[in-house]
Amino acid sequence: MLLLAPNANPTLGPWLAEELSAVSSLLEAELVSDLDCVNDLVGHVEAYRGKMLRPMLVLVGGLAASAVHKPLDESGPRPGSLPHRKLATVVEMVHLATLVHDDVLDEAEVRRGRRTLNVLRGNEAAVILGDYLISHAFRLCSSLERPWIAEAVAQTTNTVCEGELLQLANRDNWALSEATYLEIVQRKTASLCGVCCELAARLEDAPEQVVTALGSYGRDVGVAFQITDDLLDILGDEGAVGKSLGRDLLKGKLTLPMIHALARDGAQREAVAAACGQDGEPTVGRLQQLLESSGSLAYARRMSQQLIDRAKVALAALPASPARTALEDMADTVLTRQL
Amino acid sequence: MLLLAPNANPTLGPWLAEELSAVSSLLEAELVSDLDCVNDLVGHVEAYRGKMLRPMLVLVGGLAASAVHKPLDESGPRPGSLPHRKLATVVEMVHLATLVHDDVLDEAEVRRGRRTLNVLRGNEAAVILGDYLISHAFRLCSSLERPWIAEAVAQTTNTVCEGELLQLANRDNWALSEATYLEIVQRKTASLCGVCCELAARLEDAPEQVVTALGSYGRDVGVAFQITDDLLDILGDEGAVGKSLGRDLLKGKLTLPMIHALARDGAQREAVAAACGQDGEPTVGRLQQLLESSGSLAYARRMSQQLIDRAKVALAALPASPARTALEDMADTVLTRQL
Repeated sequence: MLLLAPNANPTLGPWLAEELSAVSSLLEAELVSDLDCVNDLVGHVEAYRGKMLRPMLVLVGGLAASAVHKPLDESGPRPGSLPHRKLATVVEMVHLATLVHDDVLDEAEVRRGRRTLNVLRGNEAAVILGDYLISHAFRLCSSLERPWIAEAVAQTTNTVCEGELLQLANRDNWALSEATYLEIVQRKTASLCGVCCELAARLEDAPEQVVTALGSYGRDVGVAFQITDDLLDILGDEGAVGKSLGRDLLKGKLTLPMIHALARDGAQREAVAAACGQDGEPTVGRLQQLLESSGSLAYARRMSQQLIDRAKVALAALPASPARTALEDMADTVLTRQL
Repeated sequence: MLLLAPNANPTLGPWLAEELSAVSSLLEAELVSDLDCVNDLVGHVEAYRGKMLRPMLVLVGGLAASAVHKPLDESGPRPGSLPHRKLATVVEMVHLATLVHDDVLDEAEVRRGRRTLNVLRGNEAAVILGDYLISHAFRLCSSLERPWIAEAVAQTTNTVCEGELLQLANRDNWALSEATYLEIVQRKTASLCGVCCELAARLEDAPEQVVTALGSYGRDVGVAFQITDDLLDILGDEGAVGKSLGRDLLKGKLTLPMIHALARDGAQREAVAAACGQDGEPTVGRLQQLLESSGSLAYARRMSQQLIDRAKVALAALPASPARTALEDMADTVLTRQL
């Protein structure tokens, strides 16, 4: 499901649909091997592709930045830019690699309603296929012949790995602070969303304040996206979310509503600790009630709303354009996403 | 243990020792994070570093290629070249990443005589740390500001992953052919050794026939290195090799001597199949006797000797120099290595 459906924005919709289709084709073409056993595994991963949030940040972010150099009546869709398409493909490959390796880490069995690669083909295949995706991302990135892009993407993947390692070091840490939680999310999720927007703007030779504003937009949207994910892990309908409920808790990963609830005093805290599986399996139904009554779900919703508001304010540094409006719409859609 | 001990070659030894020390420092500096939990894990991996074969191929290969532009009396060691040091660090990081992920795949417990990261800190940490190493390799590679190097390295890591996947697809394939075995080794091991030599030569603006000759040298040395590894897995003293004996067989990976023996006819084939664990645990002592009497060990030794001979012949495309002699010595050392 696209965060911005092709028909949601009559000006940009068809253009974006075409760009995303070009990105999908590029991704498929890049991953083709002369070995059947490799193509067979890659086929599994293509089922992982979902929202295409990161490619959209590159494509729409780039278009919004390009409006700086144009009068308003020329700021609509333009013919596809190959560097933006390549960059969009690169970030999607990086994202897919993290999903494949995350599922190994989480021993996840279902993603987007389908059985995960690690379950179907074993952890070994999943580990190497993740490496294959990262490696292809860097190959495509170097073919852009702009070393500053390759360096920024690699720097960001360093940061993503650090976020993953910080999260791992805090598994089963029931005293995890909100500050450390946000540090993990900034590195693991927000950094890649931010760099998508920044690099898309730099490819348009946008002025520095536009690059900074778009980077800030991307990071805030990324954090809000993660918090929505946290809420879906507790509240979401398993069929709609396409993955198991309460999985974060089962793997000892504390999410924002949990951190808020566990920071309360007294009996309520004890009840939450029991329900969230500190002494065994989490009981999701009971947890939903407790997090509702402690105000923890509301707290998480409020924080993601504030982040989305701030992301939209940052866009004021860009000239008005259909693409800027689309970025605002995408930010709003993060809050209401079901998938 | 260095393949070329500093005192083995009085002209090059001290220079190489200094270059390798610079590479080690660069590697350590590059991997430093602002997060303690990351530095703690990186510390474990530094114990994985051993022979530094790939950095040596870059450093000595580059020096040998540079002799093309110099009279013989000026073809000795020169002050360190930063691009070569960076490239040497990049390929060592890529190699370390493959070791860390290989150990996850193999469920290996010991490497270089020490407990592996996956055993000490769990598969999760090992998976992400491998990613962290690959990502840092690409970041350092893009800092070279020569997109053709980044592209060639990424292309090679694609190939390495394909080799790993082909090997995985052939686990427990007791009918593995020698051709498929060599295809796996070419991709998994030889491609990286070859690209080390080629890129080192290109950085020296060496003529194309020198680049080709060095690439061919590197690939042949890589395959010979892998065959020696196969022999060590069956014959090596566990203390000296620093890893468990018969591990390849336990994981269903057929090695060259095994493939040769299983291609024999009749009772001998049956005896080998039984001893190599087709119906249970391999019995290494019995296997050693059988592979000796079937001529399979001799066959593998002969093939690696032929590869080393061919690697040295390829070097004739380079002018005589102390570095070319050192490459010849390194090739010979591959055959006699104990570690």
